[in-house]
Formats: sequence, C-alpha cells, structure tokens
Amino acid sequence: MEKWTKHFKQISLDMRPPAELFLPIQVPQKLLMGPGPSNCSTRVLAAASQPLIGYLHPELLKIMSDIKAGIHYVFQTTNPYTLAISGTGHCAIEAAVFNLLQPGEKLLIAVHGIWGQRVADIAERCGANTFKVFVPVGEVFSLEELEKALVQYRPNVLSICHGDSSTGTLQPLENLGELCHRYECLLMVDAVASLGGTPIFMDKWEMFNFRYHHTAPITGLYTLREALAQIVEEGLEHCWQRHQQCAELLYEGLENLGLELLVKKKENRLPTVTTVKIPSHISGKKVTDFCMKEYSLEIAGGLGPTAGKVWRIGLMGNNCKPQNVSFVLTTLKQALAETGFPSSKL
Amino acid sequence: MEKWTKHFKQISLDMRPPAELFLPIQVPQKLLMGPGPSNCSTRVLAAASQPLIGYLHPELLKIMSDIKAGIHYVFQTTNPYTLAISGTGHCAIEAAVFNLLQPGEKLLIAVHGIWGQRVADIAERCGANTFKVFVPVGEVFSLEELEKALVQYRPNVLSICHGDSSTGTLQPLENLGELCHRYECLLMVDAVASLGGTPIFMDKWEMFNFRYHHTAPITGLYTLREALAQIVEEGLEHCWQRHQQCAELLYEGLENLGLELLVKKKENRLPTVTTVKIPSHISGKKVTDFCMKEYSLEIAGGLGPTAGKVWRIGLMGNNCKPQNVSFVLTTLKQALAETGFPSSKL
Repeated sequence: MEKWTKHFKQISLDMRPPAELFLPIQVPQKLLMGPGPSNCSTRVLAAASQPLIGYLHPELLKIMSDIKAGIHYVFQTTNPYTLAISGTGHCAIEAAVFNLLQPGEKLLIAVHGIWGQRVADIAERCGANTFKVFVPVGEVFSLEELEKALVQYRPNVLSICHGDSSTGTLQPLENLGELCHRYECLLMVDAVASLGGTPIFMDKWEMFNFRYHHTAPITGLYTLREALAQIVEEGLEHCWQRHQQCAELLYEGLENLGLELLVKKKENRLPTVTTVKIPSHISGKKVTDFCMKEYSLEIAGGLGPTAGKVWRIGLMGNNCKPQNVSFVLTTLKQALAETGFPSSKL
Repeated sequence: MEKWTKHFKQISLDMRPPAELFLPIQVPQKLLMGPGPSNCSTRVLAAASQPLIGYLHPELLKIMSDIKAGIHYVFQTTNPYTLAISGTGHCAIEAAVFNLLQPGEKLLIAVHGIWGQRVADIAERCGANTFKVFVPVGEVFSLEELEKALVQYRPNVLSICHGDSSTGTLQPLENLGELCHRYECLLMVDAVASLGGTPIFMDKWEMFNFRYHHTAPITGLYTLREALAQIVEEGLEHCWQRHQQCAELLYEGLENLGLELLVKKKENRLPTVTTVKIPSHISGKKVTDFCMKEYSLEIAGGLGPTAGKVWRIGLMGNNCKPQNVSFVLTTLKQALAETGFPSSKL
C-alpha cells in the first residue's frame, strides 16, 4: 500500500453505507393500464441492457439514423429537422417555447385539458406573452372556434394538445396547420399521448410537433430504436387500427357495465386514454385500489380538470391488446361489485 | 371490420416503413476507456431491463428512497434537498444557474478546463451576470487565487469543476466552501467526472453540488439505484482507493513508455481521467484509431483547451481495474510502435 501517493482506506467517513443498499432491488410485475407509463415490450427492455458504446461510434450513428427514419415514419414527415429530446416532456415544452418565440411575441394556447394548461404555466414562467382559450371538459375545439381565436389574438404560435390524457379527448388537427399559416402563425402540437395510437400526418397537416419519447443518451437511443422498429414491423396503419379496435371494445364493455364515458362524441375520444365517469356514491379510489391490490392492475384516477371525477384507462403500445381489455373489464366489474355499484348488468 | 367507427387500414401513407428498421439492432461489445461513457456493470445493465412500474407505486418510492440514501453516502451529506435531475449535465447546469441566481446577481466561474467554460456559456445564454478567472492548462486554482477573485468580483455564486475531464485536473476543494461563505457566496461544484473516483465531502466542504447521474424516469431510477448499491457494497473509501491505485499504475506505465502527462503535479491529477501528451511527430488519431480498430478499445483525444494535444484515458467505475490498465498500456505500446514512436522503451 505504501507505494500509492494517496491513502483513503483509513479515512473516516461522516456517513456510513446505508443498509438498504445491501439488499437486492425489487421490481414487481404489474399490468399498467393507466395513462402511462405502460408496460414495455420485452424487446424494448432487452435493448436497454445492451452494452454501452461511444456517442460518435459508427454503430451509434447508425442507430440514430434508424431512429430518424422511424420518427419520420411515425410522424409521416420528411422534415430533416426531426429530433428527439434527451429529457422529459416538460423539457421539450420549454425547449419549444424558447425556440419558437422571440421576446414580446404572442403564444396562444387552446386548452382542452391539463396539458394545454401546463404549456401555459411553463410558457409564463419563461416570460412568454401567453393567451388561452378554453372548451368545456370533455370537448375539443372546432376549426371555426380556433379561427376566431386566431383572428382575436393574432398569435405568433398556436399550441394545442392532440391527445389530452387528462380528459381523454382527441383534438382533430386536419386543416389546422394550413389555417394557422394563413394567419402567419406557427402550429405547435403535443402528441405525446396520441402518437402511434391514432393518425398524425405532420407534413400533410403542416404542424410542428413535440417529439419527446424518452431518449436518454445511448441506452435510451437503443430502446427508442427498438420501439420504432416494432411500429415499423407492425405498420403504422395497423398500429392505429389496433388502438382504435381495442378502444372500441373497451367502450362497449364499459357501457355494458352501465358506466358512462366522459367524452360524449366517439370521434373526440382519444383511443390511447379512455376517461370513464365515476358513478355517484362510488369511491373511485376503492376501485383502483382493488385492481392493484388483487390483480396488480393499474388504472388511474382523474387529473387536472377531471380529478376525482373519472377513471383513466390506458391502451398504449404494447399494452393495447384485446386480452388486456377483457382483463380490465372483468376486474373492473368485480371491483364495482365489491364497492356496491348497483348495476343490474354486474 | 365494419363494426369499428374508424378505418385506418386502407389509409395511404405518405411515407413507407423504412427498410432499416426491419433489421435487428446491432450493438458491439467494446472497452470504453475514454472520459465517458464507460462500460456499465452487468448488474446495472440488468436493472435497465426490469419491468416498468408506476411513478407513485410503493416499490418505486422505495427505490427512490434507496437512491437518496445512496446519494447521501457517495456525496457524504445529510442534506435533505438531495436530488437527481432527469436530464443531461447541461440540463443540471441550467437548472443550477436559474435557481441559484436572482436577476443582476453575479456568477464567478473558476475555469480550469472546458467544463468551467461550458458553465459560463450556459449562464451567459441564461442572461446571468458572468465573470471568469483562469489558470494555465493542466493547472488548478490555489485557495489564495480564489480568495483574490472573490475579493475582486464579490460574486453571489462561485462555480468550479472538481474533476475536469478535458484537462485531467483535480481541483482541491477543502476549505473552499468555508472561504466562499465568509464572502457571502454560494459554492457550486461540478463533480460529474470525479464522484466516486476521489473523495468528496459535501457537508464537510460546505458545497452545493451538481448531482446528475443519468436518471431518466423509472428505468433510469433502477440503474441509478443499482449503481449506488455497487458503491455501497464496495465501500466509498475502497472505491476511491481503487481509482487512485489504478491511476497510479497507469501513470507509471505511461512514463515507462516514455510518455509525458499533461498535469505535472500528481496531487492535481484527476484519477478518473488521465491526460497524456501526444509526442511530437505522432498522429494522435492514428493511435486511437489503431486501438479501436484492432482491439475495440476506446481512448479519446483532447477536448477544448487540450484538443489535438493529448490523449484522454478514462478509469471510471466498473472499468477501473488493473487488468484494464494493463490492456490499455499493452495496446498503446503496440499502437505507438505502429506509428513510429522512437522510444527505446517500446
């Protein structure tokens, strides 16, 4: 030991090693049927444990090029400025707001759930000149309403959420980009909860999109690449159709249980997240607790404008399959019976 | 099919599925002995492929609590405001600058390599009132020099890098926190390249630290937890000693090859990243290319103030072991012989 210039082994540490970290990590298997996170495919999880390589190694550049091709495909765009942000969704919102607006320019946010409100909160903290328009909970904007708002506020950027997971609404985007551009306004779209689950045509619809799947350096790139490869193998149209079919199976099953959906119009329902009204005299939490405790099944409560009012059932990606719909419905039926839901259907 | 309200299968997409995503992902095994990324342990990689669970599930809260205990231990702190940022290092720098400074307040950056300069660049873009002091490449600041700068600039925050991976310098931090606080100044430290490799006593040294291991939600938390558990099992003092011993083995081996280290004083050398001067008439790139091509071994070139002047050899975490030092030295010897290095030692 004497040959080393620094000796640390005799150093007295102020803090001892924490006992809990001598125990193995414990991660249970659960079925995550809420608004996210949802379960990953084994293929994507396997990619996460591939060995690290360098940022500039040719194999990583190839993976990044695959990702770009995959992103182009899922967004249906040829835009060369297609990128994934290494950070959370909030990080991407902040990046979009900072980069699309000059000081003093106007941001208009069409709010149909918590995620529009969140963009407004972040933009206001960034110092942006922010305006908001609203629709009632469970509804979406018509093109006429948005045009009226563009005329009234003359914003430089319009921000709108495609699929709002707090309300389960799907905002139609067809012709909105063209409308915005007619008013010299950029269109910024949050497609986090809708991408892959329902059609998005970024170029055809003339929109600027948040692209922010999880893309932590190296390992995150592997998993993103594999997730995109799975969509490519399935085919985007089939992927959309699968989400729509499972969603409609779910709608039908929920209605058979005597439950009511928050979003009245079928065409305004987000296929990836379904909002179900909690019947009066039923504890929403007792139902979700029952599902988790008895079956390790997650369904979620409301969020923002729907807090305390709905359950949110996710049908996302790998989890979106008919057997999961059946499992959710069977479990929900049992949970409702336990909590005394007076339905003749149960 | 007629029963579904939306039909997507007949939709004609603008972009076809990209052929490259029908092929499997290819990730080679390499030995990453540069300034990072370095190879992960199989234990940490295995954690990355554990199934997802929800953000608020008790098992995840337990993992987050383990992480907090582990961070407390590796930083030797009892500070309850100990957190890991879900983002890159730049993200954490921006967060620190935004949260430690009020408008108009002064940030002084002591620059002994590219990472100090990077903090200055980010802070200036954030609109901070930024001042810099410098030392020559390969040197670090004395306490006297830093006190002189504190007197001259009277900053609200002093930012300094503990281990600068561009120069391979280790900045002593003992008594600096106390000194800063005497001048009513906060001390902000970048320990990304030094943490776990050499002593840090956050509380004893009165410092505010960047804490920014990769911590992407869920899967990132698993891997961070396991990485911390490995340090805990080894013991922090042993971990520091292992890095110091391997570094000194490397120094000795490099000098036996007739090579010169950039950082003259042993006590100023960062054990996790060693900077080696590229001898005149030798192509640095030919040497690193040889290592990668013949042995899948990565050593890096210089960065910022050392670009084109040094090789950077990393001895980090799981990669820091005597057999890797030997492998690097043997390969480097062969590479130097190939490029015509005129040493009698080869």
